[in-house]
Order: sequence, then C-alpha cells, then structure tokens
Amino acid sequence: MKARVHVSLKSGVLDPQGAAVAHALGTLGFEGVRSVRQGKVLDLDLDETDPEAARAQVDAMCRQLLANTVVETWRVEILG
Amino acid sequence: MKARVHVSLKSGVLDPQGAAVAHALGTLGFEGVRSVRQGKVLDLDLDETDPEAARAQVDAMCRQLLANTVVETWRVEILG
Repeated sequence: MKARVHVSLKSGVLDPQGAAVAHALGTLGFEGVRSVRQGKVLDLDLDETDPEAARAQVDAMCRQLLANTVVETWRVEILG
Repeated sequence: MKARVHVSLKSGVLDPQGAAVAHALGTLGFEGVRSVRQGKVLDLDLDETDPEAARAQVDAMCRQLLANTVVETWRVEILG
C-alpha cells in the first residue's frame, strides 16, 4: 500500500529556507514573489494492505520521526 | 495567486535521504516499510493574477532554481 505524507511548518513559524528561496528568486529577476514556504513530501511503500491500519501506522511514524510536532503539521494521504 | 510546486527525484535516481528515513523507521520498530522517497513542496504567493501566466512563471522558476533538472521532476499546481 502506498502512502504520501505532506509535512509543513505550522503557520506563524518562521521559514528561513522559504525566505532564502524567495530572496534568490528576486535576485534572478522574478518579481512579484510575496512569500515562499517550503515543506517536504514522503512517499512510503508499505506491506500493510488495510487503508485504515496503514493510515494509523503512518500517523505514528509522523509523531515519532517524520515530523517535528512542535513546529510542523502533517497530512497523510493513502494512495492505495 | 497561490501556487504549489511538487519537486521529486526522477524514478531510478538513488534517494539516500529516503533510504535513511526507511532505515530509521525500521530501527524504531516500524516493520513492513518497503521504501521511502522524499521530495519537497514549495508554496508560493505571487502578485500575478492570471493562472496561465502564473503557471508559466513558476515553471521558469523551477527550471532556473527550484528543481535540479538533471535528477528531479516537478509539477506545478495553481491554487488560485
């Protein structure tokens, strides 16, 4: 079963990486970039075949490893 | 106008970061993780108001800065 996790910074948390990208786009001549925020995506291939069990397993992975629960939120998508 | 860019490694390109995550999940006791591949997501807030112009602009940004065209592919999503 394939699952996708979207991890992003909570709103209000400073994103220096995104700010650096926004600045770099400006120096390259791209105008009108108000802000950039960067997150990550993890595509997991699991042995688990039950969608709900897979979702619970991936959620536990996020809490323990994939996301920093203090400053990040995540969303689990089961792709089947 | 808000745009989202999904950048991921081309299939076949080795993903050491994803492999490290898969290994770490194993050591934490998560069994049945066949593979993990990691990508990034960029959320851009643009002054541009025309969806097609925004898409073209973001595509140019990907080619010049946001993606490594040799090993990565990207997908642009216009969120409106």
